[in-house]
Amino acid sequence: MKYRVGFVGVGLIGGSLALALKKSGFASSIIAWDHDAEALGHALKMGVIDSSADNVVTLMDAVDIAVLATPTLACEPLIVEMLQAPGSAQCVTDVASVKGDLYRAVLAAAPQAASLYVPGHPIAGSERSGVLAADSSLFEHHRVILTPGEDTKPEALEIVQNLWVAAGATVQCMDVMEHDRVLAATSHLPHVLAYALVDALAQSPIRNDIFRFAAGGFRDFTRIASSDPVMWRDISLANKDALLAAMDDFSEHLGVLRASIAEGDGAALEDTFRSAKTARDVFARDLALRNRSDELGLKE
Amino acid sequence: MKYRVGFVGVGLIGGSLALALKKSGFASSIIAWDHDAEALGHALKMGVIDSSADNVVTLMDAVDIAVLATPTLACEPLIVEMLQAPGSAQCVTDVASVKGDLYRAVLAAAPQAASLYVPGHPIAGSERSGVLAADSSLFEHHRVILTPGEDTKPEALEIVQNLWVAAGATVQCMDVMEHDRVLAATSHLPHVLAYALVDALAQSPIRNDIFRFAAGGFRDFTRIASSDPVMWRDISLANKDALLAAMDDFSEHLGVLRASIAEGDGAALEDTFRSAKTARDVFARDLALRNRSDELGLKE
Repeated sequence: MKYRVGFVGVGLIGGSLALALKKSGFASSIIAWDHDAEALGHALKMGVIDSSADNVVTLMDAVDIAVLATPTLACEPLIVEMLQAPGSAQCVTDVASVKGDLYRAVLAAAPQAASLYVPGHPIAGSERSGVLAADSSLFEHHRVILTPGEDTKPEALEIVQNLWVAAGATVQCMDVMEHDRVLAATSHLPHVLAYALVDALAQSPIRNDIFRFAAGGFRDFTRIASSDPVMWRDISLANKDALLAAMDDFSEHLGVLRASIAEGDGAALEDTFRSAKTARDVFARDLALRNRSDELGLKE
Repeated sequence: MKYRVGFVGVGLIGGSLALALKKSGFASSIIAWDHDAEALGHALKMGVIDSSADNVVTLMDAVDIAVLATPTLACEPLIVEMLQAPGSAQCVTDVASVKGDLYRAVLAAAPQAASLYVPGHPIAGSERSGVLAADSSLFEHHRVILTPGEDTKPEALEIVQNLWVAAGATVQCMDVMEHDRVLAATSHLPHVLAYALVDALAQSPIRNDIFRFAAGGFRDFTRIASSDPVMWRDISLANKDALLAAMDDFSEHLGVLRASIAEGDGAALEDTFRSAKTARDVFARDLALRNRSDELGLKE
């Protein structure tokens, strides 16, 4: 069975997914709407989409599956609009990095259609953005987390799972709040720490010597501080509660280390450094194994 | 002119420097003492050194230049012992990552010989350690910071500069306290942040999901938390004052970001993220240019 797939937003992620679904034969047709007419024009010319819709309501009437793929801050009103006018869609999904805020908005504004909503988050990206950078292999060997709610129809979940498998990804389900806590810890917090570090050093009276003598280790540690400021502003605000909790937990642990250093408590310092090293070494080994089995197409 | 060079400590750094000085013809002979007789035996067998000394005093009587290359915590008593019995040495240098504590110890315990002491810090290393990993090219295209004091003899400084140039490094001089502040900011603080982050996550109730879903970005950000716990315990304690100041400055900036997130102040967040990104992009570009000119053998 082939599906008519609609995209609200055709940037890097929407465009790449559209290409992957055409290539795999999962989609019979791709239609899209984007507030940026130029992006829509590029997508049509590149063959990423087959046709464009004039607005969200028209699009929802012409599809079996609708995918929301806009920047974070635009997601909330659009997911509500999509679900308030589900048209012919059997399921609606999205690709936002934060899931709790959208899920709450849907329950509040479109509870009657919440059963069609399958929140999704592909753990993939690129330093490039926009439909011109679309790449049908972007999701191959990557993970996608789905966070279905209690009301989500099993049929809707199954279609979205199949969609991502067709794009080459590995799908795993998770509770929506746990998703936001996990992403706060592993991605949003590290970004905020890297931004805070570079910001602190850039305002130091010895900033010239700092940047002159910093080397490769510093470059790698601060790489994520070169990420898009607008995207990370939006993610930080969308995942505010989980991010603040992760920041506070981090600051508490940093405070303990500070006390050990101030007191000259070498034994406590070594203990903490050693158990952190062990946890990080185990993680790195597991990640290498996981990447290898993902590439071999093995499931966990 | 060739020099008789003595090493107190023949691990990765001492052994690599010994090899580089023999290869370049800078050293006429290499003698070493190490508290680890096995390491000394390996160094002799490998031809890294020509002979071994029974103790520090004997070694100081047989050399023109003495290099202290032991782990951080062992440095203080040894640099004092070396300078209290300078023997035939015209200069004494070291390779420790923290410089202020050693300099203060020398001024306190061996002020009469402080003019021979040229504190040094090669910005180079390897994930391996020990003399078996010694590599004559370890310092090529790397930087070495020297932090001579007011009393340091110009002749002693010149010999140590020539020594590092012979090993393929680029030498720059800096005030000793500024060195410790710069290194605290660009190296010691990032290590402590990485250890604190992994420690916090490893103790989280959702640690299994955290490490299961963390990906390549997290792996790169936490790479330095896999560093040697003993070495980083010692560096943290040796550079305590500058590190605590850097931690407090960082925490202050993190606190401002926390307030912006909590208040939903998107404009302030975006401002900070954007200026951090700009500073980091400029740094990364300059580092790439610098690495390129170091490789081409150009001076700044």
